[in-house]
Amino acid sequence: MAVHPTALIASGAEVAKDAEIGPYTIVHANVRIAEGARIGSHCELGVPSALAEGRPLVIGEGALIRSHSVFYEGSRFGPGLVTGHRVTVREKTEAGSAFQIGTLSDIQGHCTIGDHVRTHSNVHIGQHSEVGNFVWIFPYVVLTNDPHPPSEVMKGVTVGDFAVIATMVTVLPGIVIGEGAVIGASSLVSKDVAAHRIVAGVPARDRGATSSIQLQDGSGRPAYPWTSHFQRGYPSELTEKWIAEATSFAQRHGAP
Amino acid sequence: MAVHPTALIASGAEVAKDAEIGPYTIVHANVRIAEGARIGSHCELGVPSALAEGRPLVIGEGALIRSHSVFYEGSRFGPGLVTGHRVTVREKTEAGSAFQIGTLSDIQGHCTIGDHVRTHSNVHIGQHSEVGNFVWIFPYVVLTNDPHPPSEVMKGVTVGDFAVIATMVTVLPGIVIGEGAVIGASSLVSKDVAAHRIVAGVPARDRGATSSIQLQDGSGRPAYPWTSHFQRGYPSELTEKWIAEATSFAQRHGAP
Amino acid sequence: MAVHPTALIASGAEVAKDAEIGPYTIVHANVRIAEGARIGSHCELGVPSALAEGRPLVIGEGALIRSHSVFYEGSRFGPGLVTGHRVTVREKTEAGSAFQIGTLSDIQGHCTIGDHVRTHSNVHIGQHSEVGNFVWIFPYVVLTNDPHPPSEVMKGVTVGDFAVIATMVTVLPGIVIGEGAVIGASSLVSKDVAAHRIVAGVPARDRGATSSIQLQDGSGRPAYPWTSHFQRGYPSELTEKWIAEATSFAQRHGAP
Repeated sequence: MAVHPTALIASGAEVAKDAEIGPYTIVHANVRIAEGARIGSHCELGVPSALAEGRPLVIGEGALIRSHSVFYEGSRFGPGLVTGHRVTVREKTEAGSAFQIGTLSDIQGHCTIGDHVRTHSNVHIGQHSEVGNFVWIFPYVVLTNDPHPPSEVMKGVTVGDFAVIATMVTVLPGIVIGEGAVIGASSLVSKDVAAHRIVAGVPARDRGATSSIQLQDGSGRPAYPWTSHFQRGYPSELTEKWIAEATSFAQRHGAP
Repeated sequence: MAVHPTALIASGAEVAKDAEIGPYTIVHANVRIAEGARIGSHCELGVPSALAEGRPLVIGEGALIRSHSVFYEGSRFGPGLVTGHRVTVREKTEAGSAFQIGTLSDIQGHCTIGDHVRTHSNVHIGQHSEVGNFVWIFPYVVLTNDPHPPSEVMKGVTVGDFAVIATMVTVLPGIVIGEGAVIGASSLVSKDVAAHRIVAGVPARDRGATSSIQLQDGSGRPAYPWTSHFQRGYPSELTEKWIAEATSFAQRHGAP
Repeated sequence: MAVHPTALIASGAEVAKDAEIGPYTIVHANVRIAEGARIGSHCELGVPSALAEGRPLVIGEGALIRSHSVFYEGSRFGPGLVTGHRVTVREKTEAGSAFQIGTLSDIQGHCTIGDHVRTHSNVHIGQHSEVGNFVWIFPYVVLTNDPHPPSEVMKGVTVGDFAVIATMVTVLPGIVIGEGAVIGASSLVSKDVAAHRIVAGVPARDRGATSSIQLQDGSGRPAYPWTSHFQRGYPSELTEKWIAEATSFAQRHGAP
């Protein structure tokens, strides 16, 4: 365990022997950190909270948590968690494998996140959000949950697999975004979005099928599903399948 | 005084004996912290600044300031201040009791905040803002102040008591938001808003009386004034009055 | 060199003798800090990264970097850099003199910034952005770069000299904003903006010449070019020229 001498590790914390923990970082008692973790400087992990109801903070294998991040106790992350700097994650966040959380993002807890979800910087995920697998969320997006704030009524947002939410979007409470849907930048999503549709505007309106967007690389290929052309950082067993699917699609539709 | 051994407390700082101060936190000299305060880790309180004109940072009784927060000298907070993580508060912020400041919020100073104001995460309050009592401000809201930036003309926003500003709203300089008004998400507020009206859109337009919004809890009751159904965390002498008012209103109007 | 005893300075780092480095700040090896620098507390400078390709972090003379900021190796700043708190600057950011970066701003790297650029709080500058000289960017602005996210196609935004981008604006990939243009608050910029034009809205539409906006100080003068009335913090050799130009313009046009 390569723990910097200034790191403060509470007795009771279970930290894998090979974990690296940076200077001035605090690890509270109710924390389990698996093998291969690298925790940056100035973090605070396992902040005690009654809302966690005694559950530990569990960080899966191979995590990379960058500096100044804060995680409460009572959340669980699969292997391959990667964060930017200064992320905040509150209690009862349940996330699958390879969750990437951008710098300054704020996960409010009481939410579920699938596998291979990636948020860019400064994303706010409200309580009771349900985010599927392979979802992309870009900067300054807010998933809300209160239909008439302030109130005790909480209706989380549901985001389908492979959906993409572009920059500066607000998604209203209880909205369901379908699989593979694309939300344009600076939109307010006030109605459910069907699978593989594009919506944009304030309020967001239907702008056509996602397959109508052309990739701007001169190839003439469609930009969605994005799995046909973007594979960076995903496991090869997945990307081989994605490439095969894209080839098959192109052959069926006569694309180059 | 439960001060962590790594906390750096300048001589001259007046910190109540029972205050807790977390690891790696810095308290500068020109600071007064009252009884019952809990200050998290990695904070910096009382940052010296010529703009403070020598005034101290005064934190009232029972404050909870979460980690990585930065407060300048020259501001004053009533009892019951609660902050999220990484808040920034600049000089000459004058706030009443029970101010709650969400994670990542940025209070630019030279502003006044009433009693029981609550901001959610990532709220930006520009200089010369005047925020009333019992105001709610949701994530990614910006109160601006310069009508033609950059300039030396500063016109702060005024927000009336019990008003609610939903997520991702920009309020233009000099705008007055009336008592109990509700601003819809993703709006640009470019005209004054009358009391108890809803506005929404870019630019925001009138959408009716706040009383026309129905509470989505199956009760058929109106969602506003929100004091009729939301009392969490307010003192009981207030909430008893709010409940009595709501009951009286319902009896007069024949609601259940 | 006034380095706080708790600061961790790697051997190899070149820090000017008169530099001040605050408590709990980390300076990695591949860093060059010039004379007159003041670095706040809880910062991390020169974060190692393969993307930097071995290049150092170079901070020019007289820099002021406020607390909790994070700079990667591989970026270069001219003299007079000033930052707010908790800024993040990634690899291969090349900035001129007197760059001011507001609190919580996130410079994604692989970008160029001219002289005397000022960003307010919480500005996000995407990779491949090219920002000219004397540009102003206000809070919660995002310069994007991917025309159909996620993809490997990167088209940075270009911002001309003296342009102004107001609060809560998204600029779409590849957009060119002309010299002296003004983007209104809460806009989505989806088309190029000609020099000295105002655009606003979602999507942004032309609203006239910038010279049509009147300064709200009772003088009757135009608010743009802003150099005619706003000179705070710029070198006197520049501001004297700006004032002379404004006087000449007013004489030619009969203004007071």
